[in-house]
Amino acid sequence: MIILLGSSGYIGQAFQQALENRGAKFAPLSRKEIDYTCFSKLLEHLRKTKATFVINAAGFTGKPNVDACESARAETLLGNSIFPVTVANACSAAGIPWGHVSSGCIFQGAKILGHGAARVEKNLMAPEIQLLREKNPEAVRGFTEEDAPNFSFRQPPCSFYSGTKALAEEALLSAGDGFIWRLRIPFDQWDGPRNFLSKLQRYPKVYDNVNSLSHRRDFAEACLDLWERRAPAGIYNVTNPGHVSSREVVRLIEKFLSPGRKFEFWAGDEEFYRSAAHAPRSNCVLDVSKLLAAGVKMRPVQDALEDSLRNWKTSS
Amino acid sequence: MIILLGSSGYIGQAFQQALENRGAKFAPLSRKEIDYTCFSKLLEHLRKTKATFVINAAGFTGKPNVDACESARAETLLGNSIFPVTVANACSAAGIPWGHVSSGCIFQGAKILGHGAARVEKNLMAPEIQLLREKNPEAVRGFTEEDAPNFSFRQPPCSFYSGTKALAEEALLSAGDGFIWRLRIPFDQWDGPRNFLSKLQRYPKVYDNVNSLSHRRDFAEACLDLWERRAPAGIYNVTNPGHVSSREVVRLIEKFLSPGRKFEFWAGDEEFYRSAAHAPRSNCVLDVSKLLAAGVKMRPVQDALEDSLRNWKTSS
Repeated sequence: MIILLGSSGYIGQAFQQALENRGAKFAPLSRKEIDYTCFSKLLEHLRKTKATFVINAAGFTGKPNVDACESARAETLLGNSIFPVTVANACSAAGIPWGHVSSGCIFQGAKILGHGAARVEKNLMAPEIQLLREKNPEAVRGFTEEDAPNFSFRQPPCSFYSGTKALAEEALLSAGDGFIWRLRIPFDQWDGPRNFLSKLQRYPKVYDNVNSLSHRRDFAEACLDLWERRAPAGIYNVTNPGHVSSREVVRLIEKFLSPGRKFEFWAGDEEFYRSAAHAPRSNCVLDVSKLLAAGVKMRPVQDALEDSLRNWKTSS
Repeated sequence: MIILLGSSGYIGQAFQQALENRGAKFAPLSRKEIDYTCFSKLLEHLRKTKATFVINAAGFTGKPNVDACESARAETLLGNSIFPVTVANACSAAGIPWGHVSSGCIFQGAKILGHGAARVEKNLMAPEIQLLREKNPEAVRGFTEEDAPNFSFRQPPCSFYSGTKALAEEALLSAGDGFIWRLRIPFDQWDGPRNFLSKLQRYPKVYDNVNSLSHRRDFAEACLDLWERRAPAGIYNVTNPGHVSSREVVRLIEKFLSPGRKFEFWAGDEEFYRSAAHAPRSNCVLDVSKLLAAGVKMRPVQDALEDSLRNWKTSS
């Protein structure tokens, strides 16, 4: 029996559907049923249900956005750092593995191939990087699971949210046998407040930057594939291969949805942070070689984006 | 078998002596022996040694002072919030109780009795409070275990250190059967860098404010008394009864040690924070009625201070 925590959340829903789809024996566990933040209650439940695997898709992301985590520090730490440790501890005591939804937002920038060793470039909007992406996108590489987070409490500046996610990874690595699945900017064809494609359409102005993205269902399927294939425990970047700029995604939205409006963009970081954001934002490229080498298939980000927009479903 | 974590630290040493003194069967556990931050290793050790109680006197306090915690956020959180949760979880899995060294620094100010309900006063250096302490010290009351921390991530401003200590208390309260022992500004007769009486003598200028204090050995003995008396689990303020200003303590130092120097004081908060401190400091009075009602004896802070100075031992 697989136990799914946070099943009502944006990512938890995708896990629920992916589990149903593959006919897995699973049970979502809600906090109304059992206060699963309490170690002893969670452990008792895991033993009673003979759980074989725990998926923790719960977390505190901040509403309406990550800026809310800057002031809600207790909730952010409890949800993103302390709770995952309690889940991992309970799984350890019960002798079962777990999977934790982490985030790629603990990195800033990308690794640029050139002559000699790849160098880290944090500003992906620099003109030379834009040129490079046009001429040789393969030269813009992502961070691997071996790289230390560079947008974290240990390597500031970072947002408080990112700090708590990176801290959880560090604490979980010593907590035993589990998967740390890094999600990055989820999207799919279902219009909604957490969907990157919806957000881009709702922002008064778009902040342009380069990122790896995770199709929500692709992400959940890939995570479950890792578990089913009995891939080695540890960290996995789980994004669709490739990188894309917000401006490129807006062009796809214009092409597929013909929204009949003109998109505006912030002139740059200075205007964006003065007007629309408080905490620094992560913009980064992740390397998914480890995921692919484990035999898990992920379609390129371009394909996932076009597919989502082709099958776009508004909530109205 | 009692397991003592953090036995080499300032407070851990006092626990070690107090345990030896009462002939308790105990074993200090060092991280060199076993990485006790790893849940499964700690749990295995607790089971193997048939531990009956775990004392967690480990923590991250920042060197040379609490300001260091503002930038060492990962270490501060790992040491003060995440590690205590792992200890409590391991104890829960092993079915044994624990005691955690918390801190009174999650409060600011005191409760002032007057006509009607007591009011919280955060600025204990206000002239009317100084007058009140002189005329009627009983009217300056401490925060009880029922009061929510008012110098925490939930009630900012706070230092990062205080935030992590308050967060741990919150997480531990749902983690089961344990004692949360609140220490406040330790001192005793042994000259040293963590001793408040030594600090006051070493500061170029003294920051005057009103606080409750904990004699180090009195603290450890009181914590162990609570355990031996099988007092109900939960939070306990463990300070010597009363409150004292830094200026009053300096006068005692002058009286007992005749240091042959003139002590200078910062003119006020404005000068202190501009020149000598970065993070906001907690200054507070704690109520120890709950501790005393549990049958634990604690001598008044004045007696403990005079006794320490009368038996003062310099490290040279």
